Amino acid sequence: MAAIKVHGSPLSTATIRVLAAIYEKELDHEFVLVDMRVGEHKKEHFLSLNPFGQVPTFEDGDLNLFESRAITTYIAHEYADKGTQLIYKDSKKMAITSVWMEVEAQQYDQAASKLVWELAAKPVLLGMSSDTAIVEENEAKLAKVLDVYENRLAQSKYLGGDCFTLTDLHHLPTIHYLMGTQAKKLFDSRPHVNAWLADITARPAWLKVLALQKKQ
Amino acid sequence: MAAIKVHGSPLSTATIRVLAAIYEKELDHEFVLVDMRVGEHKKEHFLSLNPFGQVPTFEDGDLNLFESRAITTYIAHEYADKGTQLIYKDSKKMAITSVWMEVEAQQYDQAASKLVWELAAKPVLLGMSSDTAIVEENEAKLAKVLDVYENRLAQSKYLGGDCFTLTDLHHLPTIHYLMGTQAKKLFDSRPHVNAWLADITARPAWLKVLALQKKQ
Repeated sequence: MAAIKVHGSPLSTATIRVLAAIYEKELDHEFVLVDMRVGEHKKEHFLSLNPFGQVPTFEDGDLNLFESRAITTYIAHEYADKGTQLIYKDSKKMAITSVWMEVEAQQYDQAASKLVWELAAKPVLLGMSSDTAIVEENEAKLAKVLDVYENRLAQSKYLGGDCFTLTDLHHLPTIHYLMGTQAKKLFDSRPHVNAWLADITARPAWLKVLALQKKQ
Repeated sequence: MAAIKVHGSPLSTATIRVLAAIYEKELDHEFVLVDMRVGEHKKEHFLSLNPFGQVPTFEDGDLNLFESRAITTYIAHEYADKGTQLIYKDSKKMAITSVWMEVEAQQYDQAASKLVWELAAKPVLLGMSSDTAIVEENEAKLAKVLDVYENRLAQSKYLGGDCFTLTDLHHLPTIHYLMGTQAKKLFDSRPHVNAWLADITARPAWLKVLALQKKQ
């Protein structure tokens, strides 16, 4: 039995964020499907793992974690000597990477996640229509963030520095969903963003996550 | 001339979050006031420090950082041997602290910052009225987060574990503003949350930040 278990749904952005880190690190693990259609994530057992009732949760032996970015950070530090290096040992390089990790969480994701919900989840999964005003507002917000990314990526191969790190990895799930929507144009129209996106979405670890998603 | 400089506004929650970490670590520093009333944070010099045009930015010698939580994380690691320990050396304890740091950023702050804007900034600073629907929605969201905190703080003296860490520190600025609003009742009505709040807001480093705020 693997010491590492991920309880989640292969459709959830937060779950596939964690799986991407696990595949980059080539860690043995067990994936435990949480059936969100029957509300399994709101039942007592799951709430004892994550009191917010959100996927994924993560176990490594007797350690239980939730919040996808806290889990990937733990994986990157705890398994620093395995697979892809996802963080820097140098404290100043790591500080700059942390800035861009916060940019992802505080600036990019606020708009990107709302667009995933409006343009991918609502129409495709739930058969509901998108709210045009919310889409417009968040496309404008995302465009401003991607303008900053375009400048950054003109000077730096990856967002956090010269190597692929957690910063880039954290973007993969929302980028994946947005590529199937009208928001794709916001990425396509910015050449450095587009080249970065082509690079990070072609990583073997990420392709394995997408293959797992298709199997479910 | 101090190697550490903070460019910001003493009214901004993100600026006083960084100052709280600096005072906990007792670091020599220079505070550079950014006059946001004249849009100094949107001018070219400032945008070269932070392309998003938001306060604060931080310098430590030739290292430039922005995003308050990335700055406090850098300070906690880089000056680990000074002042208050704000992180754990033990990787599992640190992982749990990181979970609650993400909870602050992803769950608590999403509601708390909107309430600070609606109930403190808009009526007090800008002479505008609050949007009742937004206030109600975010009070309900914050109440759910504080229910989880109440359970957590019944078992753990601080949110991240048995010691005061960055997790608790990151909450101080929004708590400070919300204590002067109707949202105070959400904290008062939960005894463990209330005891935690009384403890962390009485810290000498935090009182120094508030004294600096009054001087400006």
